Amino acid sequence: MSELRKDPIIDRWVIVAAERGARPSDFKEERKEVETKSCPFCGGNEHMTPPEVFALRDGPQNANGPDWHVRVVPNKFPALSIHGSQERSGLGLLDRMDGIGAHEVIIETPEHSVHLSDAPVSQIARVLWTYKSRLVDLRGDRRFRHMIVFRNYGSIAGASLAHPHSQLIALPITPKAVKDRLRAAQAHYRAKERCIWCDLIRQEAALPERMVQRSEHYIALAPYAARFPFEVHLFPTRHCHDFVLMSDDETWELAQFLKEILLRIKVTLNDPAYNMMLQTAPNPLPRPGRPDYWGTIEYDYHWHIEIVPRLTKVAGFEWGTGFYINPVAPEQSARFLAEAEVPIIAEAVAV
Amino acid sequence: MSELRKDPIIDRWVIVAAERGARPSDFKEERKEVETKSCPFCGGNEHMTPPEVFALRDGPQNANGPDWHVRVVPNKFPALSIHGSQERSGLGLLDRMDGIGAHEVIIETPEHSVHLSDAPVSQIARVLWTYKSRLVDLRGDRRFRHMIVFRNYGSIAGASLAHPHSQLIALPITPKAVKDRLRAAQAHYRAKERCIWCDLIRQEAALPERMVQRSEHYIALAPYAARFPFEVHLFPTRHCHDFVLMSDDETWELAQFLKEILLRIKVTLNDPAYNMMLQTAPNPLPRPGRPDYWGTIEYDYHWHIEIVPRLTKVAGFEWGTGFYINPVAPEQSARFLAEAEVPIIAEAVAV
Repeated sequence: MSELRKDPIIDRWVIVAAERGARPSDFKEERKEVETKSCPFCGGNEHMTPPEVFALRDGPQNANGPDWHVRVVPNKFPALSIHGSQERSGLGLLDRMDGIGAHEVIIETPEHSVHLSDAPVSQIARVLWTYKSRLVDLRGDRRFRHMIVFRNYGSIAGASLAHPHSQLIALPITPKAVKDRLRAAQAHYRAKERCIWCDLIRQEAALPERMVQRSEHYIALAPYAARFPFEVHLFPTRHCHDFVLMSDDETWELAQFLKEILLRIKVTLNDPAYNMMLQTAPNPLPRPGRPDYWGTIEYDYHWHIEIVPRLTKVAGFEWGTGFYINPVAPEQSARFLAEAEVPIIAEAVAV
Repeated sequence: MSELRKDPIIDRWVIVAAERGARPSDFKEERKEVETKSCPFCGGNEHMTPPEVFALRDGPQNANGPDWHVRVVPNKFPALSIHGSQERSGLGLLDRMDGIGAHEVIIETPEHSVHLSDAPVSQIARVLWTYKSRLVDLRGDRRFRHMIVFRNYGSIAGASLAHPHSQLIALPITPKAVKDRLRAAQAHYRAKERCIWCDLIRQEAALPERMVQRSEHYIALAPYAARFPFEVHLFPTRHCHDFVLMSDDETWELAQFLKEILLRIKVTLNDPAYNMMLQTAPNPLPRPGRPDYWGTIEYDYHWHIEIVPRLTKVAGFEWGTGFYINPVAPEQSARFLAEAEVPIIAEAVAV
């Protein structure tokens, strides 16, 4: 059982997952991606993972059998587990609770080497549907307050297995960094009765400066105050607080849009490692007055996807202050990415 | 001239230093430490750096000449510059100001390979005196609200030159992460009229669990909610908000104490890369009611040094939520470090 601990000074929690690693010697070498013939995520090796919790198959749903398109399994080394108590306890200044939550792996394809940027749009759409489906399912557990879907691509970005996969973590605590955004969005809404991201998108869409890509319902921007070079944020242009509310047509459009963005990054930066994070609304708690009740979330939050190529190192200044030095102006990043030559992506809208 | 930009949603600023790097191809390879015979920081190569702003020499102070113990020069590629306006300006949701500040390099020794853990205590004490001296000097510029001294050791930790050095950055904005701590400390002080770190140190000093090392005036702890394995925080046991108030005797004791901690880390983890950050009180602004006036800072803040060995990778989950997964319980980290066999460190108290 892992443990959640709160920093005694600020409202920042960490997961202490001591089962995962132990002795100092475990850290003496850089861990690399495991490249092996017996990849647990490859089609045919379904017995090598914990039993699946979800899969997309064309034919009959033969759980843990072959012929799947996307498969979701619990992480074999989960940071959090669904068992345990949600009670918090303290000892003087120190706060803790059991490490309850969920930690799932979304295996994006049975094929070992076809990453999202090179996958057919239909396959990317299946992955996005899977994200939606897992988010909806896990929200049923009211102990979980926040969920994040993320994708680590490349060893530098923290991927320990090369096979294309995303991860989903459900947390019993809304992370401080998320709360900071939720509070800021709520304050803006209270002052203006407008969504702050809608305002930002309107302002940015009027200029070419930081625009990377645009489609009917989506926009990709190099953020004005990006922490990292070539960072890209992707938003639905119409207000929507929650990723799971996306229609099927919009999911198809997003799959095309995302593939194009990932190809721009791949071409411009020679296939860099990257992290991709889906930021969507927290699990709504129904009780006004509770600390994590976000009463106007439907109006004030706007889901988005962040993509951060891992090109620079984070050093003492950044760790010590939370201030980042970005060596490339976002306008430059946007121009390079927007001008990248990528094939036109179109595919019939049908699976 | 670099630029400071504020995130449109939260109170987080970044430095956009576009002169430092430019084209996507600059990022295609991992940058390594530069190992060269013509190291600009080595004794005898003083002409290779910008003119010094400070140095410790035994004999006559022959600026930019040889025979120094510690030498401080402006960073040749500064993230911030002392020229520019402190005026903030905005365009709709976007906030900016000139990238004013200071960015100095503290060259810790004329010798290329003698890092702090292996340096004589007298040399470490000189480095600490230099930190104090530069902090005091830069505080005279009232445009600077916060200063951080940090040390990146090893390429993975962001060091671009192998020669032993620290850096100092003075910022015209108190970083959000620092403000969060200052506000929490202030709230605790208002509620209890006690320093929160003093409370924490008292609680932790009563237990052996997370204790790494102790001397008359200092204590080193594995933080209860450490984000990283083998992270160590070092505090003066007596209340003191500001590093520069340390007496000469205390500076000597700290030099010994720090050497011992760094040796413990070196021995336990096979000489890992690490970041070291000095967290001291911000520059006091004299005007009550201004946003960065910290009226009770003398009572509520407690300076400390954070040391983070770079053993794990930061991935999508951490970037997306600010939640960290620590694979080693701090109690385990403390035990390994406390039990490391390091030589007894003692040296006559005289330069």
